[in-house]
Amino acid sequence: MFLRELRNPLLEPLGDSAVFRPSDGAGPRLAFSTDSFVVKPRFFPGGDIGELAINGTVNDLAMSGARPLYLAVALILEEGLAISELERIASSIASAASAAGVTVAAGDTKVVERGKGDGVYINTSGVGIIDDGLDLSPSQVRDGDQVIVSGTIGDHGMAIMIARGELELELDLESDTAPLNGLVATLLESVDGVRCLRDPTRGGVATVLNEIAMAADLAVVLDEAALPIRPEVNGACEILGIDPLYVANEGKLIAIVAPADAGTAIAALRRHPIGEQSAIIGTVTSEPRGMVLLDTAFGGSRVVDMLAGDPLPRIC
Amino acid sequence: MFLRELRNPLLEPLGDSAVFRPSDGAGPRLAFSTDSFVVKPRFFPGGDIGELAINGTVNDLAMSGARPLYLAVALILEEGLAISELERIASSIASAASAAGVTVAAGDTKVVERGKGDGVYINTSGVGIIDDGLDLSPSQVRDGDQVIVSGTIGDHGMAIMIARGELELELDLESDTAPLNGLVATLLESVDGVRCLRDPTRGGVATVLNEIAMAADLAVVLDEAALPIRPEVNGACEILGIDPLYVANEGKLIAIVAPADAGTAIAALRRHPIGEQSAIIGTVTSEPRGMVLLDTAFGGSRVVDMLAGDPLPRIC
Repeated sequence: MFLRELRNPLLEPLGDSAVFRPSDGAGPRLAFSTDSFVVKPRFFPGGDIGELAINGTVNDLAMSGARPLYLAVALILEEGLAISELERIASSIASAASAAGVTVAAGDTKVVERGKGDGVYINTSGVGIIDDGLDLSPSQVRDGDQVIVSGTIGDHGMAIMIARGELELELDLESDTAPLNGLVATLLESVDGVRCLRDPTRGGVATVLNEIAMAADLAVVLDEAALPIRPEVNGACEILGIDPLYVANEGKLIAIVAPADAGTAIAALRRHPIGEQSAIIGTVTSEPRGMVLLDTAFGGSRVVDMLAGDPLPRIC
Repeated sequence: MFLRELRNPLLEPLGDSAVFRPSDGAGPRLAFSTDSFVVKPRFFPGGDIGELAINGTVNDLAMSGARPLYLAVALILEEGLAISELERIASSIASAASAAGVTVAAGDTKVVERGKGDGVYINTSGVGIIDDGLDLSPSQVRDGDQVIVSGTIGDHGMAIMIARGELELELDLESDTAPLNGLVATLLESVDGVRCLRDPTRGGVATVLNEIAMAADLAVVLDEAALPIRPEVNGACEILGIDPLYVANEGKLIAIVAPADAGTAIAALRRHPIGEQSAIIGTVTSEPRGMVLLDTAFGGSRVVDMLAGDPLPRIC
């Protein structure tokens, strides 16, 4: 609906950020991104809504190849929120911004009546610079490219599900929320053949790869045995009947890399503290166009569909 | 609390936008701003939350002297919102962006459960370019400068109060929501002596002038007889015991202008469709520093204080 109303060349690619050069010719290209955070609960193992809100926009900018520079933070507070909670969140926003090396340059606060919000919702938007010559996009993806994930999948989504206490599961599992801009810098310094980056948040790895396959008009074949998944996440997924490929991540990236560069890229990623478990999980092929397939551990093959609807509201 | 946690030179001026030059030396200065909109009701005479959200960020950018270019729009939808309402809002966002000459380059949508929102909350953030040589800031304000308002005051706030139907008042009154970037361009082309611009939204003219007086360490003396106020707004304010100087505006600007340029500035503003009722409403003086005074129609003088607290939640 919004795309139909607002149709324009910057919005239509539906990437993680809009990319533009603000002045014709002079000055660098900028990436500009926005995201609202409504995660429930707002404090969870491994992070909170404040840290998530900073990392989320930092990561969207980083996926465009931008160096994130300036963030704006806007809060919608529900009347009755304890000041001590807001203080924790403010402090967490400050630490996360500092850890990611970004400046919170602007902000806004609104208050709504009790029952018209849920404690706090946070919107972050951000601006970053893209170095000249860098063009990360699904249109750069080629047959034979390798698909890399920077670590274990499904940690954030499963940590949130467990933290809600609605499941009869007790697990020591933390969200992977982390800023990815340092990892991206490491990757881009190591090889020239990075085609495209995406962070598999809502909808997980499956959704991001489907989007890339469709945009590139190519296929992705995943190797189930190569997917890095924590045993506890795998176990919880099996009990709940959820496919970890669809579970949200908040500190992982998917990189599509030229075949000749994949080994060097993996080595570089693994040297970074948040990339130690990076793995090649699949290959880009020419057929079946626009689709993602999974070669299962049992030697079969199945289609990894685009997910219809939102499996888990308020995961971020 | 947030300023204490996030303290940095971009945030501290607490202006309508953060201003920075993203690449050292090359390229133009950018303005970057964010605002959330939680107005209630979301459709009101003269506008709706979608139009308000676009104009609000366009205006914050324009007050920094920036030409607004790109906006990001993020929606938090409450489960159960009628699609027809969302369509009206999407269409209104598109028209407002088009009218202001800005591109909606990025967006986000989140859905929260019934009872955890109120139909729709909208965050907009935006980026604009500031021409070199332009420096609008309270620090530019000088003793003797003239205070201009671009039209009648209090229209938006009073229209919202009436639209809520909680008052036993029926009035044919519309919000003044409008993009101010065209008016600012007209003003800046007409004279060089524009010191500072602010849009008197939440807290109204009184709050903005107090902020300027404090930041400039000068005083503002207002002439009550010169304040442009619609008779119906004035009447409603008298009945309700509200001072129109504190009532929100969404399509008006306050300009502080060098005395020699004030006449030319007023003439230019009045030629613009949304500036026809522009007026000089006061003068900057050296004493009493940091304060705003009102010379009343009866020949007296009273202090126009900074408002403590939010007189009317969800006005924007």
